[in-house]
Amino acid sequence: MDAFDRLDGAAMEGGGAPAQARTGTLYGLGMGPGDPGLLTLKALRVLERAPVLVHFCKKGRRGNARTIADAVLRDPAREFPLVYPYTTELAPDHAEYVSALAGFYEDAAGQLAGHLEAGRDVAILSEGDPFFYGSFMHLWRRLKDRFPVEIVPGVTGMSGCWTRAGTPITWGDDVLTVLPATLPRETLLDRLSRTDAAVIMKLGRHLPKVRAVLTETGLLGRAVYVERGTMAGETILSLADKPDNDAPYFSMVLIPGEGRRP
Amino acid sequence: MDAFDRLDGAAMEGGGAPAQARTGTLYGLGMGPGDPGLLTLKALRVLERAPVLVHFCKKGRRGNARTIADAVLRDPAREFPLVYPYTTELAPDHAEYVSALAGFYEDAAGQLAGHLEAGRDVAILSEGDPFFYGSFMHLWRRLKDRFPVEIVPGVTGMSGCWTRAGTPITWGDDVLTVLPATLPRETLLDRLSRTDAAVIMKLGRHLPKVRAVLTETGLLGRAVYVERGTMAGETILSLADKPDNDAPYFSMVLIPGEGRRP
Repeated sequence: MDAFDRLDGAAMEGGGAPAQARTGTLYGLGMGPGDPGLLTLKALRVLERAPVLVHFCKKGRRGNARTIADAVLRDPAREFPLVYPYTTELAPDHAEYVSALAGFYEDAAGQLAGHLEAGRDVAILSEGDPFFYGSFMHLWRRLKDRFPVEIVPGVTGMSGCWTRAGTPITWGDDVLTVLPATLPRETLLDRLSRTDAAVIMKLGRHLPKVRAVLTETGLLGRAVYVERGTMAGETILSLADKPDNDAPYFSMVLIPGEGRRP
Repeated sequence: MDAFDRLDGAAMEGGGAPAQARTGTLYGLGMGPGDPGLLTLKALRVLERAPVLVHFCKKGRRGNARTIADAVLRDPAREFPLVYPYTTELAPDHAEYVSALAGFYEDAAGQLAGHLEAGRDVAILSEGDPFFYGSFMHLWRRLKDRFPVEIVPGVTGMSGCWTRAGTPITWGDDVLTVLPATLPRETLLDRLSRTDAAVIMKLGRHLPKVRAVLTETGLLGRAVYVERGTMAGETILSLADKPDNDAPYFSMVLIPGEGRRP
């Protein structure tokens, strides 16, 4: 890929990846945190031109990345949904979950390879940034050695959340730790007691555990809860003021740093 | 601010902040990691319209955020450089550094307040994301209670770097730790031994220390060095293969996570 893709650059020609004239390019498109105004110029250009637009979704629902694209897409005929066999119904270390997910990614990669082999560019819409906890990565690792790839980084969900909360996350020499709430209580306790700032993702049913750990580490008073940051239905409040433990997938807890401020 | 700024939204009208008809709005503009194609649609819109465009720079140099803007700006007359009194000449805890920086920010905030009071929107160009180690934050905290503010989050430098390195940073339940290389050796050692993935920023003259700590923690083999990611002069190599300890400001070390991959 080019070291410096200018605005009129070669993105749609595969960005300088090894020439494979007959195959399409696989794009990992960072769709940003939710507000379509936070799409990058590059992501928009790929969205407008790629013949196959892939998004992940839950059974019976529309994927959030696809919803972001609504604001800029006129022609929905190119879309290609990939429906997860499971999302939160089983634990991620459950044998059936692992096996079902692996089969799902294998099958999806096979379908996308068909498009790529036929010379069609395939863009996978990823919430936030594709290489930061993205489902895209599971397709990427199955296809990257066979086809030209271009990743377009995106504004992360956490950047969207701390922006909307009006709280800078790191100052001076602050250490930032990003933790999935799915981790064991002891791990959360240890990591949170050794950081200046934190982002706790994937809350879901783990919010009671997170709340207890933050209370124990004395961080509850600094904790900000953000739900659907930059999106319709956005909710932002001090975690201490949140009366319930309901937390959808698109929610996180922020612990803003308190570092050097000359 | 609006919970959901659509593409044709109210960004330039202050985004719904308390109406202060006679004052301008202060914008914190995330300029992304370097490639101008990674600007967001919202940042571009503000860049095109704001009458005062502020960027930070070192004496005798052009700021990097301003260089990113080159690709999209036709009219350089609106620019307003803020020249740091010091950057790396003194340690950040040196009394003279702290005092000079505080005076610099106070003075700069005063000048920007003049524009805002006169009804002119002021956009501060921030490399990466404004609320993630941004100098912008020091002006923001001095002005935020007096003027309407809108922050436009950006793609971080670290997202740009792991994208260009072709290495997903976090999988599954990986913990990510972001550490400034300026921290004491013992702190780096402790934090790095308790994380799955890491980004080590602000390398500068601290690269020998970082290299030693990574060797001690057994992480050197996974460490990727990225200099000027997404920009002209980009360099990416395994840290173990880097023959010298020269690291400019725009460089970082990545330790990619190795978590769950169904």
